Amino acid sequence: VTAAPARLVPDLLDEYGKTARVELASYTRVRQPFRHLYKLVADYPERGGRMLRPSICLATAGAMCGNRSVAIGPAIAIELLHNAFLVHDDIEDESELRRGVQTLHELHGIPLAVNTGDALCLLALQALSDHRVELGWSLTRLLEADFRRAAFESVEGQAIELGWRRDNAVHLTIQDYLEMTLKKTCWYSTIFPLRAGAMAATRKPLGPSDLVELGFLLGAAFQIQDDLLNLVGDEERYGKERDGDLYEGKRTLIVIHLLQNAGAADRAELVNLLALPREKKTAADVAWIRARMDEHRSIEYARAVAHSLAGAALYECRKTFGHLDSSIDRDFLEQLCAWVLQRS
Amino acid sequence: VTAAPARLVPDLLDEYGKTARVELASYTRVRQPFRHLYKLVADYPERGGRMLRPSICLATAGAMCGNRSVAIGPAIAIELLHNAFLVHDDIEDESELRRGVQTLHELHGIPLAVNTGDALCLLALQALSDHRVELGWSLTRLLEADFRRAAFESVEGQAIELGWRRDNAVHLTIQDYLEMTLKKTCWYSTIFPLRAGAMAATRKPLGPSDLVELGFLLGAAFQIQDDLLNLVGDEERYGKERDGDLYEGKRTLIVIHLLQNAGAADRAELVNLLALPREKKTAADVAWIRARMDEHRSIEYARAVAHSLAGAALYECRKTFGHLDSSIDRDFLEQLCAWVLQRS
Repeated sequence: VTAAPARLVPDLLDEYGKTARVELASYTRVRQPFRHLYKLVADYPERGGRMLRPSICLATAGAMCGNRSVAIGPAIAIELLHNAFLVHDDIEDESELRRGVQTLHELHGIPLAVNTGDALCLLALQALSDHRVELGWSLTRLLEADFRRAAFESVEGQAIELGWRRDNAVHLTIQDYLEMTLKKTCWYSTIFPLRAGAMAATRKPLGPSDLVELGFLLGAAFQIQDDLLNLVGDEERYGKERDGDLYEGKRTLIVIHLLQNAGAADRAELVNLLALPREKKTAADVAWIRARMDEHRSIEYARAVAHSLAGAALYECRKTFGHLDSSIDRDFLEQLCAWVLQRS
Repeated sequence: VTAAPARLVPDLLDEYGKTARVELASYTRVRQPFRHLYKLVADYPERGGRMLRPSICLATAGAMCGNRSVAIGPAIAIELLHNAFLVHDDIEDESELRRGVQTLHELHGIPLAVNTGDALCLLALQALSDHRVELGWSLTRLLEADFRRAAFESVEGQAIELGWRRDNAVHLTIQDYLEMTLKKTCWYSTIFPLRAGAMAATRKPLGPSDLVELGFLLGAAFQIQDDLLNLVGDEERYGKERDGDLYEGKRTLIVIHLLQNAGAADRAELVNLLALPREKKTAADVAWIRARMDEHRSIEYARAVAHSLAGAALYECRKTFGHLDSSIDRDFLEQLCAWVLQRS
């Protein structure tokens, strides 16, 4: 990855984000029952995420047909689904902070949070359906099928990852990690936004594997960087509790590298620590794991893998979009490949 | 309600249920990731519910066009959504037993159970979409819109009910209860099955209020009977923990009647007990509430209301379906109005 992302990516994220937020607001507006449902529905969206998924969707449409707005329906739908997943994932991961504030279930309890996630998922479906007139019925049906596919992949990836923690899986490889990430993160975060943007732009179906490779490379680089930020990021800017993944026993690429490279005694200790439930892990336990990661250069390893993936994403991006007329939307997609590693 | 339900309703429930189960099996079949997802997805459906929702859907189609099978798609979809709600509701209500076995989150933990509910909801959408060829695209779209409406109503009703417990609401009326039940239970349990069966049979859209009254009357009678069975039913046949609703502080019509009719001292004590979290309520507390319900004849009151609703449902059912050719499907719908009160 050579191109310096300069200001283009952050500036355009603001611009796409602004467009998306206007439309999103009609799905998170005040209505009844407010205090125990729609107030909670609006909470995460109003915490001001980066709107990465709608941005990819709008940029792809803009790059391919010059008109970003044709993709606003799927762009909003995927952001609502993302928020539904955040609410349920925070429960499933027992996370405490989200975008710098207490998670929804910490604020309102698990029962109302589970129900709010369900409502956000239904709103996502509603957003797709609401744009059926502009998009046409047959294109809407294709987008809905892709949307369900992305959601299923994510739920399956989540089950795989939760299963690893539950079984205290310790014989994982980078292939296992990348397959899980493809399912859990890439399908809904990058593959669907790219494909939906392209379908909305061309009004044609895509082949089943079109844009999947690009979405995988970009999404996996993004996810590894996310795991790195949990260990080395600035908590205030990152918005989640530092080292939360270590407390949760999450099988990040960094943990997998350490499991593969630690000596027998350290590995045995690590396996024991990973098996402990979150509340039984001490700050000293987490510091010990963190020190072993430094010793075995596991963070550098994960950084190198993310770098390779981002480089491959850029190559794939140029191959995919290089023939299109030059546009800031196309530049955004290219520069995004480096930005995912540089964001903080 | 005069007609004796004899064997027709149970026999036809078995018959509709068998048809529905064959189709349902293709959505709960073994696949990967199995141990942490699809095994859990299949658990509740395989515990052998009564299949009431698909039965209403198939019976309505059968009564209206002589061909039950046109409604199999929405019939399966609503049963899958019902199972998704059961999984999430059991978490939200902290229930321990479902169909006589430990609830899914008791068996596998809240994280995997939340995720399994999400998968069941996606499978419901898949089932609707899978039948788009027989049903035609425009009818499928109408069914999907009704399906989302039903799901939204239920999530909103759930928020209202959870909110009552959270706020320890004590000034509720029968109107509040019936509105909540219309949203939480009736829309997806009776209104959608009736409407979807009718739309599949006629291949025409329905007006927004068609069959809503009948579904409300039938569904509300059903829900009140469900609440009664929690207090007076045979635990083994009923499949949930006896008095679970009292431990949960659920605002049933019986509790609402008691709140309205107890003397000042008893009422104050009841309000305190309702505010206690589940694990702080003793068996003596629950027995005390139960004794006050007997004293104030709250159970008889709820039974009388359920009886009136079922009678009105029968009247509405005859008004709605009376002009159709006589059929066992039509007889089933009529006799169901009495059966909902007599089931155990």
